[in-house]
Amino acid sequence: MQGKMKIAVMEGIGKMGFTEKDIPQTADNEVLVKLEYVGICGSDLHYYETGRIGDYIVNPPFVLGHEPGGTVVEVGKNVKHLKVGDRVALEPGKTCGQCEFCRTGKYNLCPDVIFFATPPVDGVFQEYVAHEAELCFKLPDNVSTLEGALIEPLAVGFHAGMQGGAHAGQTAVVTGSGCIGLVTMMALKAMGVSKVYVVDVMQKRLDKAMELGATGVINAGEQDAVKAVLELTGGVGCDLAVETAGTEITTQQTIHMVKKGATIVLVGYGKTGMMNMPMSLALDKELSFNTVFRYRHIYPMAIDAVASGKVNLKGIVTNIFEFEDLQNAMDLSVRDKANIVKAVVKIAN
Amino acid sequence: MQGKMKIAVMEGIGKMGFTEKDIPQTADNEVLVKLEYVGICGSDLHYYETGRIGDYIVNPPFVLGHEPGGTVVEVGKNVKHLKVGDRVALEPGKTCGQCEFCRTGKYNLCPDVIFFATPPVDGVFQEYVAHEAELCFKLPDNVSTLEGALIEPLAVGFHAGMQGGAHAGQTAVVTGSGCIGLVTMMALKAMGVSKVYVVDVMQKRLDKAMELGATGVINAGEQDAVKAVLELTGGVGCDLAVETAGTEITTQQTIHMVKKGATIVLVGYGKTGMMNMPMSLALDKELSFNTVFRYRHIYPMAIDAVASGKVNLKGIVTNIFEFEDLQNAMDLSVRDKANIVKAVVKIAN
Amino acid sequence: MQGKMKIAVMEGIGKMGFTEKDIPQTADNEVLVKLEYVGICGSDLHYYETGRIGDYIVNPPFVLGHEPGGTVVEVGKNVKHLKVGDRVALEPGKTCGQCEFCRTGKYNLCPDVIFFATPPVDGVFQEYVAHEAELCFKLPDNVSTLEGALIEPLAVGFHAGMQGGAHAGQTAVVTGSGCIGLVTMMALKAMGVSKVYVVDVMQKRLDKAMELGATGVINAGEQDAVKAVLELTGGVGCDLAVETAGTEITTQQTIHMVKKGATIVLVGYGKTGMMNMPMSLALDKELSFNTVFRYRHIYPMAIDAVASGKVNLKGIVTNIFEFEDLQNAMDLSVRDKANIVKAVVKIAN
Amino acid sequence: MQGKMKIAVMEGIGKMGFTEKDIPQTADNEVLVKLEYVGICGSDLHYYETGRIGDYIVNPPFVLGHEPGGTVVEVGKNVKHLKVGDRVALEPGKTCGQCEFCRTGKYNLCPDVIFFATPPVDGVFQEYVAHEAELCFKLPDNVSTLEGALIEPLAVGFHAGMQGGAHAGQTAVVTGSGCIGLVTMMALKAMGVSKVYVVDVMQKRLDKAMELGATGVINAGEQDAVKAVLELTGGVGCDLAVETAGTEITTQQTIHMVKKGATIVLVGYGKTGMMNMPMSLALDKELSFNTVFRYRHIYPMAIDAVASGKVNLKGIVTNIFEFEDLQNAMDLSVRDKANIVKAVVKIAN
Repeated sequence: MQGKMKIAVMEGIGKMGFTEKDIPQTADNEVLVKLEYVGICGSDLHYYETGRIGDYIVNPPFVLGHEPGGTVVEVGKNVKHLKVGDRVALEPGKTCGQCEFCRTGKYNLCPDVIFFATPPVDGVFQEYVAHEAELCFKLPDNVSTLEGALIEPLAVGFHAGMQGGAHAGQTAVVTGSGCIGLVTMMALKAMGVSKVYVVDVMQKRLDKAMELGATGVINAGEQDAVKAVLELTGGVGCDLAVETAGTEITTQQTIHMVKKGATIVLVGYGKTGMMNMPMSLALDKELSFNTVFRYRHIYPMAIDAVASGKVNLKGIVTNIFEFEDLQNAMDLSVRDKANIVKAVVKIAN
Repeated sequence: MQGKMKIAVMEGIGKMGFTEKDIPQTADNEVLVKLEYVGICGSDLHYYETGRIGDYIVNPPFVLGHEPGGTVVEVGKNVKHLKVGDRVALEPGKTCGQCEFCRTGKYNLCPDVIFFATPPVDGVFQEYVAHEAELCFKLPDNVSTLEGALIEPLAVGFHAGMQGGAHAGQTAVVTGSGCIGLVTMMALKAMGVSKVYVVDVMQKRLDKAMELGATGVINAGEQDAVKAVLELTGGVGCDLAVETAGTEITTQQTIHMVKKGATIVLVGYGKTGMMNMPMSLALDKELSFNTVFRYRHIYPMAIDAVASGKVNLKGIVTNIFEFEDLQNAMDLSVRDKANIVKAVVKIAN
Repeated sequence: MQGKMKIAVMEGIGKMGFTEKDIPQTADNEVLVKLEYVGICGSDLHYYETGRIGDYIVNPPFVLGHEPGGTVVEVGKNVKHLKVGDRVALEPGKTCGQCEFCRTGKYNLCPDVIFFATPPVDGVFQEYVAHEAELCFKLPDNVSTLEGALIEPLAVGFHAGMQGGAHAGQTAVVTGSGCIGLVTMMALKAMGVSKVYVVDVMQKRLDKAMELGATGVINAGEQDAVKAVLELTGGVGCDLAVETAGTEITTQQTIHMVKKGATIVLVGYGKTGMMNMPMSLALDKELSFNTVFRYRHIYPMAIDAVASGKVNLKGIVTNIFEFEDLQNAMDLSVRDKANIVKAVVKIAN
Repeated sequence: MQGKMKIAVMEGIGKMGFTEKDIPQTADNEVLVKLEYVGICGSDLHYYETGRIGDYIVNPPFVLGHEPGGTVVEVGKNVKHLKVGDRVALEPGKTCGQCEFCRTGKYNLCPDVIFFATPPVDGVFQEYVAHEAELCFKLPDNVSTLEGALIEPLAVGFHAGMQGGAHAGQTAVVTGSGCIGLVTMMALKAMGVSKVYVVDVMQKRLDKAMELGATGVINAGEQDAVKAVLELTGGVGCDLAVETAGTEITTQQTIHMVKKGATIVLVGYGKTGMMNMPMSLALDKELSFNTVFRYRHIYPMAIDAVASGKVNLKGIVTNIFEFEDLQNAMDLSVRDKANIVKAVVKIAN
């Protein structure tokens, strides 16, 4: 396809702008996707506010955005499973396929991954993207491209569940009721977990959790969250905890909230990189800790869960911004974290 | 509790009668349960028709019935988690707790198990039973004792799912749409499996499967079941198959119905004990076969699944018989397998 | 590297010849290997005798041989972990890296695999081969290229152990004491399995098994193999059985030889493709059956096991033939299966 | 058996004495064991020095010692697998067999466990003990009762390996080269792990590790242990780390020493109960942490490993004390931790 496309670029800390580039060429194993919605992720906001995450440093102009949904407009000649007009969710990481991690199925750990919006690789706040067809997952008729854009964060929630061995009959607690906490809660329920309690300090977020299907919520600003979880579980604790808040206090609490032999899944990153944890208690209870780095093999199950109505993915969206309004979208999202649980940018429709 | 109770006994092949015994004493670690419903299982019918299953031979008078639900009327002094008035589902097998199998958590393989209605151990077509409290699982308010009686077959379905590693995002096929096929289908869905197809040759049973939530059904009397499953899965086959029909043809078909690397769970027993299977094909596809002998650790998750509405357990019941009518219940169940998917005996209420 | 190389070709059933071709070009991600030893596998013999295995049909001239060891003589420019002079074992299957199976780590199931000596893909009874560097595994100083050639069959043995969850403290039985039976026995021991019994009907092969470290052997031509295994295990049976003989009788026996809850790994292919199995007994014992198709992720662990002296890989070799003598090597191997456990062709040195 | 036996009691902090009691009666499911060797564990020393471990407080007179080996002298009438004269290793924890943890095979987490030398339950620094026969494991002819006594700590090492999924082909690091570090190193090797490096700051202990089969050792007092491990693994890190030292610095180091996706097993308890850990790095590498509380199902595999010569268990013993000399044994062990890696008390012979 010939022509120009509009691209939003981060021009510096706290500064968005627009530019224009050629619509990318579609390689033989790729499809060209006209993007309709791209979610704004916490990491996008972090780069926008501070210019870096750990060793990943933005060198402007840089394109943010890695949660895309859109429609196929061109198909590379080796692509068999997609055709023009198919609506797709795009998994953002291209991996090498040959390293130890790729070969053993843990492709999310591939050291040579090329991942949207992770410096120096540009993201997709733009009108078109050419992407490996194997990473473009067709959406069923009853799943919108808005939901398609949100498959990316939902995939983190499902991967957290998989890492925790979530299954039918369990009782779980999720600490943190932001976007990742909410999708994790919904993923756990879709995986058959019987009861999922959600802990946060912002009542609005907890109300959202209840609205989306949490079994119960605990406002840790108002009550002792550990005590509350133990009471809700007849004194025995949960089978599984997923920590998404990224604070030391919630991480410590999960160790008290679970029963002996339980698994704790750590998803949230802390501010300092360090966590001081009551490990002797963890040993006494013979707990396991699994961690989450992105996800692998999750898109199909996440899309299925949305299509079957098990996950109300649209329900997490609190704000939809026009593409033109991106600077405002970023600024508001940074400023008003209590109210903006999840913002999405509408690129086109 | 003092007094007499009524007991139904199998007096010979095809012959039921009633007798009376003392209400059993309640040991310190037991509860006495007034039974309300007891399901009729295929094995009860088999003993009734033929007097034996394999090496297990009925020596009349013998009490059939091992799917009980009722209400606690007396509590042993060491029992803490139950009280008079609690409604319970009873897991029918008492195990030794000390053998290799018990100690490693596979208590269903305990060689010293005492299992209701498995000769020479009597079953529970009777008014009261004293049973280990640890094997009596309290039913939530929204689960009836009729459903409590049906937790036993449902447990087989969940164990089949566990043995198959069933999880979110999978596509599965269940061969056989009798009681066990139906509960397996519902269990798989409760475990997060996305799509569950059911195969049988009796349309009535398939209609029941659809009514209870199957994604689709295949009448193998009318079409090539393997071809149908491959078409429904875009030519790739299922991730998981559960065989509940116990025929050689369905067992063979599952090997053709699944994709490479898939798991097949075998639940149904064949008539001769032998199965001729296309094992070279199974090796080429590197399939795994897991088998099911009763269940372990399943009652809580099965009860949860019913309580949360994920499993419509009442829906499998086609006939409820009065206790007095037991001979008729057995005779009809033997004669009319096409219409009587699941019969339950109402002991009291 | 410029020049011609000598290649052995199967010119028809039972007929080997030689030809000459250009030494292959080395792609950027490849190394060129001067082959020193190539093992003769049962499948090579089967193609040689009958012209086919299942749907794989030899269209002569065809190059057999897929168990190669040699020395790197040229290195593609993108290759980092190998240099000229490194001695290597070559894993024979190139996979796509992108399909569902490759992405989930089960690359041995890749439908687009290109595997040496599997029609129409030629094998490596030849002087040089250019191969993906990622599939060429460097041998430590104390592992010879003769052993390097034998890593391929040993990988099958280790994969069988992995598929069976072999671990320390177990007692296992291996049925069949041919090349694959022997390497499986050694692999199980290297994985920590305490006791490994080997069953065969040829005493010579059993003597070889004892020589290579079997805990005990059973000549099934002289005694009841099931009874013998039960006696050796105090009546309880083995934790694990690996079937490598590919006969119905041995497959059936494994079901009787193991304890409840055990795993049986099926490696051997039967003559007809079908196996009649006592599946009711398998269900009563709640057995699992896992199967083996080639291997995945095994070369490093197999090489380590040889280097550390845990596996006496050279010990399985009964015959070494000169390259020029290949016709004779094939003919003898076909004729004298009782004595030729494992033949290897010396290409150069 | 009638008569009196001699018992060593802790009479107060740092004070041992002797007393006399009746030889215990042997219940139907028990055997009476004449003890020959009992190991001195770090926890015995800790109780002896400080009077407590966490919430477990010694109320003198109290009997220490939970690592016993001896000979059966009397057999309860229900015991089938043991006879008078059998030499046995005793697993020290009796569990309930009925709780959730026992039933699911995690009996080491049973809340009602009765464990030797854990206040208020007395240990076995005494001449006889009556113990559940199921917890008495017969030693083969080539395993001594001295080794039998040491099966207890070895079981911790094997359980650490099991918790870490240790298997053939891996490279592992063990931090800490005390008794538990050493038995863990040997257990990992017996489980097939290819290379096991050991880190400590005391050269004597590292020399012992080398003597017992470590692949290599690192004196962290003399070099950067993380850097050393990375160099030994070609920059990629280990597949598995087991932390037995119980210090914050070694715990932190394990996170740097392993490759992405690796497992870290935590065995050592820290002084304060808290550990400050670089968890963001752990998330980036998607590490798993498993912990160890005692062991389960390990005695048979540990005994097998000693019998087959895979584990040189006698080799860890640096000191054997006479029973009469127990006060001295305790005092020396407390004082000279650098030299006394493992002390054992000879009760009789």
